Formats: sequence, C-alpha cells, structure tokens
Amino acid sequence: MMNVNVLRLDHRIGRDTRITTHVCLTSRAFGASKIYLSGEEDHKLMENVRDTADRWGGNFEIEYAKNYMGVINKWKDNGGKVVHLTMYGSQAHEIVSEVQKSSADILIVVGGAKVPGKVYKSADWNVSVTTQPHSEVSSLAVFQHLLMDGKEFDLEFENPVFEVIPTAHGKNVNIHDENR
Amino acid sequence: MMNVNVLRLDHRIGRDTRITTHVCLTSRAFGASKIYLSGEEDHKLMENVRDTADRWGGNFEIEYAKNYMGVINKWKDNGGKVVHLTMYGSQAHEIVSEVQKSSADILIVVGGAKVPGKVYKSADWNVSVTTQPHSEVSSLAVFQHLLMDGKEFDLEFENPVFEVIPTAHGKNVNIHDENR
Repeated sequence: MMNVNVLRLDHRIGRDTRITTHVCLTSRAFGASKIYLSGEEDHKLMENVRDTADRWGGNFEIEYAKNYMGVINKWKDNGGKVVHLTMYGSQAHEIVSEVQKSSADILIVVGGAKVPGKVYKSADWNVSVTTQPHSEVSSLAVFQHLLMDGKEFDLEFENPVFEVIPTAHGKNVNIHDENR
Repeated sequence: MMNVNVLRLDHRIGRDTRITTHVCLTSRAFGASKIYLSGEEDHKLMENVRDTADRWGGNFEIEYAKNYMGVINKWKDNGGKVVHLTMYGSQAHEIVSEVQKSSADILIVVGGAKVPGKVYKSADWNVSVTTQPHSEVSSLAVFQHLLMDGKEFDLEFENPVFEVIPTAHGKNVNIHDENR
C-alpha cells in the first residue's frame, strides 16, 4: 500500500496548537505514518502527540521541519507525489482516483495562514474538499478517507495501551498494561 | 432529503473558539442547515460564522442553546433521530445505512470536554469514526460525508459573494458584488 505522510505548514504556537494537534491525530487515525510540522517549533505539542500515539499504538512519527520546501523536494526526488489541500484546488472526489492510480507514496500538504505560490506550483495536485470554507482538519480527514477508500476503519495499531471496542451504548475500552 | 442539524456541546470561549468555529463551518459545508451551540455563549464566534456564511451563500443558521437536553428532546418529540459522535460508539461505516434508512431528520451531537451519560442514553445512535483519538472536526466531516453519500461536493449555496471555481493551479474566485 502507498505510504502517506502529511506536512503541516506555518504552525504558530498558541494560536494553532489545538488545530495542529488535531491535524496530527487525524493524520495518524486515517493512516499516515508520519507528519512533518513546519512554522514555529512546538516541543510541547510534539511531545503530547507522541504520548497519545504511544498510548494508542502503532508507529506514527512526528518531526519538525524548518525547511518545508526541502521536505517537498526530497519527497519528489524519491519518486513520491504531492497533494496540496486548498479550497481553490480540483475537487477531491474527481481527482482521488488519479492520485490512487499513480501508486506513488503521497505527501499531503496542509496549509497554514498563508501558503506561498511555490507550494501550489510544486504540488502534483492542488485538491479541494468542497468549494466552501471549513477546516484543514476536515479537509485532511475527508481526503484521507477518500484516498484510503474507507479502509481507515480497518487499520490496526500495534501494541496499544488503550483499545476501544465499538459499542452501541456506553464505553468499552481494553487496557493493555503490558504495553505501557 | 433529510434535514441535518448539529448540536455542539460545552463550548468554552477562548480555548474552544477555533475548534468550534471549524465545527460550525464543517457542519455548513457538509450540508447541515443549522447548528446549535451550547456551553458558554460566544457572541463573537456566532457573528463571525454568520458573516462567513453570508459571504459564501446559502441559509445556514446558528443559535445559542443553553439547555442542550431541551434541543435533543424537542428534536425527538418532532420525530427526528439523534446521532451522538463519540470515539466509543458503533463504527460509522457500519451504522450509517441504518441512519439513512430511518429517513428521519438527523441531529448530530458533537461532544465537548465531558459528555454526560444522559447524552449517550438519549442518542438513537452513538457513532464512532474509527476507534482512534483524533478530532471532533474530522469525525463530524467524515460522518456527514458518509451520511450524504458524498453529495456534499454537489451542494449549491445560494446568492454567495464568493464562489470558488475549482482549478488545478492557482485561484479562481467569482465575486458577486450584487450579493453583498
């Protein structure tokens, strides 16, 4: 299966902390193996995301990348393709099968406050999830859902401490103390 | 088509402002006609969402509801059904066709920091989008996407000032000054 990474641009400590945290956790839950964070270096956020990922299993990675164009260019040099999520791009449901058919590893770029033109230019696809304003978190989730053909529901995260067993009412959580 | 409303619980001014704003805009972009906000009454947030909705068209409504159980009970009294999004619930992809087949109007409840047991009990369906922690924004978006069968991409928002024309590179926005 293709490897999916996410690159979050232009993080600002404080103002973006919760949104970027949600971007990180969404990336992981929907099948990305790694996220690169650009903008301000936020050690506390990265530590929190690592803690959550440790407790819930799998091998999600998070790395600070001051030079986001370096991440994009290296990805492309290695044969990967780049999807930039922007409300101005091609509609996701129309473009996703083309992305899947490329069989390349995919770097999904999630914008910040202002995205420079070079990001649009370097992307193989500029992709929009509806033409309406909403959220980088919802755009990322729905695009990953489409890219995965809904397989995010079947993902397994190895060696979790917490494992939710879906249930119609109440809460059912297996706690694996051996994985602490 | 079913009418979809969203109820956001336990909003906290400041701490939740951006996340709740994204919940509001996601609700609208994915086809809900109205959102109820509970928790702290946040006039500025509501004004900002109304401004955005006005500029981008359609008839999205936002209303403060101090008594969220009142909203839930009234919805059910009127024959509507209630979906509560929680990471502990039944998996969304397994339950969504049952929700669609009910042909009822749907109130989607999006939790806050702590959700009391009576919300779980009053919901017709407690629904999870994956069993992993991520974001109420991504849960809402993906659940609405599933509920709409992807039709959110075809929604039309009447009388917008701004109208994005999807484009592979750059930005293409029609500005309708007559709708200001």
